Amino acid sequence: MSLIDALNWRYATKQMTGEIVPQEKVDIILEAARLAPTSSGLQPFEILVITNPELKKQIQPIANGQPQIVSGSHLLVFAAWDNYTEDRINEFFDRTNAERGTVNERFEAYRNMLLRIYPARPAEENFQHAARQAYIGLGLAIAAAALEKVDATPMEGFDAKALDEFLKLKEKGLRSVALLPLGYRDAEKDFLVSQKKIRKSKENFITELK
Amino acid sequence: MSLIDALNWRYATKQMTGEIVPQEKVDIILEAARLAPTSSGLQPFEILVITNPELKKQIQPIANGQPQIVSGSHLLVFAAWDNYTEDRINEFFDRTNAERGTVNERFEAYRNMLLRIYPARPAEENFQHAARQAYIGLGLAIAAAALEKVDATPMEGFDAKALDEFLKLKEKGLRSVALLPLGYRDAEKDFLVSQKKIRKSKENFITELK
Repeated sequence: MSLIDALNWRYATKQMTGEIVPQEKVDIILEAARLAPTSSGLQPFEILVITNPELKKQIQPIANGQPQIVSGSHLLVFAAWDNYTEDRINEFFDRTNAERGTVNERFEAYRNMLLRIYPARPAEENFQHAARQAYIGLGLAIAAAALEKVDATPMEGFDAKALDEFLKLKEKGLRSVALLPLGYRDAEKDFLVSQKKIRKSKENFITELK
Repeated sequence: MSLIDALNWRYATKQMTGEIVPQEKVDIILEAARLAPTSSGLQPFEILVITNPELKKQIQPIANGQPQIVSGSHLLVFAAWDNYTEDRINEFFDRTNAERGTVNERFEAYRNMLLRIYPARPAEENFQHAARQAYIGLGLAIAAAALEKVDATPMEGFDAKALDEFLKLKEKGLRSVALLPLGYRDAEKDFLVSQKKIRKSKENFITELK
C-alpha cells in the first residue's frame, strides 16, 4: 500500500476492539520514531510503551476518559526533554564521535555553539523546541502505523502534568506531549469510520511561488 | 521499499545536485503533509513551495547560506498559524458540516469548547501549539520523500522573522517554522553521505511498562 493510500485509510479511531497489535508491528512503529530526524540530531524525546492493563486503566481518567487508552493494546507516550542541558548536548556529541570514530573540528565548533546557545535559554523555550521534534517522531510513527494497517489515534487531550506525575517523568527530565494508542478499529461501533475525511483543499493548503 | 529502509536511506543531505524532482513526486510529498492528522483536525499550517531560482537565491542568506536552499529544486516552507481565531475555528467546523452534510450536536459542542478556549489564550501559546501540528506534517513529508527516494533536509537554521517578512507571511497570519528543500544528493561532494547514522539505542529511547 502506498503511503498516501495508508494515510487515507487511517483516521482518528475512537473505538478499538482490544485486539493485540503484534510486537513485530509495534517494533516497526517505534523504529520509525527512533529514526526520525531531529534538530541537530539530538533526539530530545523518548517514548514510553504501556501495555499493562492496570496502568492504562489508571491513565484513562487523566486522558478525559477516552476509551482508546484502554481498548488500544499499546499506549505510546511521547515525552520531550524538559530542557537542553550541557550534559544532554555533550552526551550526543560524545556518542557521535565514539560511533564514528573521529573527532571533527567543524563538529566540535557546532557542539560549542549549541552549548553556548541552548542551556542559556529559558527551559520553557527549550522544551517547546524539544516538543516539536517529538512531533516529527509522532508523524513518522503515524505513517508507520498506517502502512502496517494498525490504527493509531494521536491525542493531546490529557492532563500532561498529572500524567508526568503518574509516570514519574519529571525525575527523568521529561514532559509528556502526546499519546498514541495503537490497536484495531471497531468498525461496527465507531461512528467516525464511515465519515468523510476532512482536509483543506490543495489550493488552501499549498501556495506555489514559481 | 519499507518505511524503515527508506528512513535508513535518508539523511540530512548537505550537497544536492540541482536535478529537478518530478512534479509527481513533489505532489505525493505535499499530499502526505496535507493528510497529516492535526489537533481537532484544524490543520493550523500551510506549505509554500518555492521553485523560482531568484527567490531561492534571496532566501539563501536568510538561511545561513545553506546550499540546499538553492541546490534543491523545490523549497518547502512550513508555516504555522500565528494564532487560533474564531474565524479560523468556525471555518473548519462550517466546512466539515458542509462536506459531511450533517450538523451534529456533539460536534457543535466541541466547536463551542474550542471557541471558548483557543481565542482566549495568548497568541504565542496558540502559535506554539500550531507549530507542533506543522511538525506532524513535516514528519509525514519526510516519510513520503524517503519512500519516493527524494532527498529532503529539514531545517530550522534560518531567520524566521526575516523569512516571514520576505514572504509576507504576517499578512496571511502565518509564521514560518521549518524549511524542507527537496532534491537529490550529490554523493561525491557530500561528506555526510558515508557517515554512520547516529541514533539513541532502543534501550535509551524506549521504556516499556508491562
